[in-house]
Amino acid sequence: DPSAPADPAEAEDFLRRCYAENPRLGPVEPRLAVVRAQIAATGTYTHSTDELAYGAKMAWRNASRCIGRLYWRSLVVLDRRRARTADEIFALLVRHLETAGARGAAIRPVVSVFPAARPGQPFARVWNEQLIRYAGYRDAAGRVIGDPRQETFTAAMQGYGWRGKGDAFDVLPVAVETPSDGLRLYELPEHAVLEVPLGHPEYRWFAELGLRWHAVPAISNMRLTIGGVHYPLAPFNGWYMGTELGARNFADVDRYDMLPVVAERMGLDTSRESTLWRDRAAVELNRAVLWSFEQAGVKMTDHHTESHRFLRHLRSEERAGRTVPADWTWIVPPISGGLTPVFHRYYAEQDLRPAFYLDDEATA
Amino acid sequence: DPSAPADPAEAEDFLRRCYAENPRLGPVEPRLAVVRAQIAATGTYTHSTDELAYGAKMAWRNASRCIGRLYWRSLVVLDRRRARTADEIFALLVRHLETAGARGAAIRPVVSVFPAARPGQPFARVWNEQLIRYAGYRDAAGRVIGDPRQETFTAAMQGYGWRGKGDAFDVLPVAVETPSDGLRLYELPEHAVLEVPLGHPEYRWFAELGLRWHAVPAISNMRLTIGGVHYPLAPFNGWYMGTELGARNFADVDRYDMLPVVAERMGLDTSRESTLWRDRAAVELNRAVLWSFEQAGVKMTDHHTESHRFLRHLRSEERAGRTVPADWTWIVPPISGGLTPVFHRYYAEQDLRPAFYLDDEATA
Ligand code: HEM
Ligand code: HEM
Repeated sequence: DPSAPADPAEAEDFLRRCYAENPRLGPVEPRLAVVRAQIAATGTYTHSTDELAYGAKMAWRNASRCIGRLYWRSLVVLDRRRARTADEIFALLVRHLETAGARGAAIRPVVSVFPAARPGQPFARVWNEQLIRYAGYRDAAGRVIGDPRQETFTAAMQGYGWRGKGDAFDVLPVAVETPSDGLRLYELPEHAVLEVPLGHPEYRWFAELGLRWHAVPAISNMRLTIGGVHYPLAPFNGWYMGTELGARNFADVDRYDMLPVVAERMGLDTSRESTLWRDRAAVELNRAVLWSFEQAGVKMTDHHTESHRFLRHLRSEERAGRTVPADWTWIVPPISGGLTPVFHRYYAEQDLRPAFYLDDEATA
Repeated sequence: DPSAPADPAEAEDFLRRCYAENPRLGPVEPRLAVVRAQIAATGTYTHSTDELAYGAKMAWRNASRCIGRLYWRSLVVLDRRRARTADEIFALLVRHLETAGARGAAIRPVVSVFPAARPGQPFARVWNEQLIRYAGYRDAAGRVIGDPRQETFTAAMQGYGWRGKGDAFDVLPVAVETPSDGLRLYELPEHAVLEVPLGHPEYRWFAELGLRWHAVPAISNMRLTIGGVHYPLAPFNGWYMGTELGARNFADVDRYDMLPVVAERMGLDTSRESTLWRDRAAVELNRAVLWSFEQAGVKMTDHHTESHRFLRHLRSEERAGRTVPADWTWIVPPISGGLTPVFHRYYAEQDLRPAFYLDDEATA
């Protein structure tokens, strides 16, 4: 519960770890005394800028489903704890996307940390699962245009008066809810939404499929918890790993479901599974994704490279005396799992904090 | 410990379940009284033929790593509890392979159950991990010819006087150890080892790689435990799922490591991971495996078909009021995981008995 009082034990655990890992912050004991007193008096406490920044990095470091953690120290932490109104928040979300790299090229990992929940009080949040997502519209025949995963959210936005173009890649509005302003919908300005149209290095017809995707995956429905303090609105982004698009968003039967279409254009025999037409279509779809981002000069990683980086991360964390909690079922990529080194070992499973959590109530 | 006395509680649990699921066996109470008395007097008890057969099927049903469990009722159980000498055992292992389908076509799932371990006494076992495996020889330059996974075992066999041809697909001898005869090595007769040479539906050069594999995977180093009684030698086989060869045995860098070779013959750009040359080569290797077995008329399943069957198994077990213990990391295939329906859900993880267990000491 984000609006419960801060747990003093969790606060102490975080601060001791944070100060131990950052000697330049000085001794932790005086700080602990202040925090204990703040919690006793108000039910919570306020992180210093350094604590906030390092806590956010630790939360990334502890994200057991994330294969991209090698660069956890490089996270850009934007302190947005003074934002109050929906307008302010939305403007800062746009700034988040600009900072992450809306204008192209080098995408930077960024988190924007908005006000902490205060005990017993309502808090601001964003209804979207990611800052940039495409609408999904169900037509009369029951077919979905766009991203079926966003069907419910899209319908909710329409209920609040939003009207999309009805295309397969309509960027959804950002739904900001604050205690003072209630729910407000905002359209992202075009310059904040970098997109990459998909082509294929060999198949000319691929571009005719009209596929595209946004460059920045910015998850906006996870709560950041640091030392017992909850930040219900703390959107973060990295860059994409190709399989997230090529093997999931475009491939899942309950998403864009493109494998049958790609297979047909490739002329594959889809009459029997044993021709492996799904596997062949998926590999070409993934090649198209990686190639197109590269052509557009937009940073993206592939699952082989990222698997090796993750193993490097495991080694460097081990040298630092830390265990890396990891969820095998998320770390191993959704295609070619066995071809990557992350497949051939097990991991420690642990719920370490600071952390990002998905709260059920954070979605529409 | 296979030579520990039978646990009466485990015996009772098994018998109650076995008799409840098989009403034709009659009431369990009289049987329980007999078994309790047998355990009290001798430390163990003897399964009836029906109990043995059903217990073995339950062990398959409980194999949480096995995707092929839909057909658990069809397991052919060969009762070999009277075999004593190494010669007898080896002859019956050959019969196992013949029954499983050495001469081709329909492969049948078979388990051969050899004598149970008796409390405090030595027992017979087979050192091989599977009845049919290929030798791995390390040459002077440190390169391995054959299957690197069998390097230690191969060296052990050579230490006992065995001499292989030194080729990439030399069938290893069967190492049978009995309390009376010690260790004896046997060569499998050719007719017991059905093999399939690999070709590719489109790439003519593929056959030139000289790859082949055996049709029957017969695991021989797992202990079968039924109702507290341990059967240290109970080799079992199903038929292959293509990925076991195409995505593991031929693809793993510490097995036959064929992806670079296949990619080179395909003319792929292997200078960067993002060309997905590994993925492309793996798909063609898997196509070759499935196509070649089909051409040879040897039963094999593909990972898409088998995933759907497994979900059918889950539904039918649910209807029977049973949970299906399953290990996601083994059930999801090593390529195209996300393209199969088994990827998109979680499973109950439970250690149910009867079961097959891997004992460390069962390998050389
Ligand atoms: C820098 C490049 C990054 C890469 C390549 C990367 C890669 C990934 C991938 C592939 C997943 C699985 C996504 C899925 O299957 O839905 C994931 C999950 C996750 N990542 Fe990262 N990541 C990056 C940056 C970050 C950053 C900056 C953070 C937080 C500060 C983060 C936190 C997480 C979390 C919390 C999850 C789990 C999400 C969930 O439960 O749905 N990642 N990451
Ligand atoms: C009938 C066709 C069958 C198919 C297609 C099948 C498929 C599979 C596959 C793909 C695996 C994973 C293998 C690996 O990744 O190394 C597996 C594991 C396993 N299967 Fe099956 N199976 C079949 C029959 C059987 C039978 C007849 C039994 C026992 C009576 C059995 C018991 C097991 C066990 C115990 C494992 C785990 C092995 C280990 O821990 O190494 N399976 N099966």
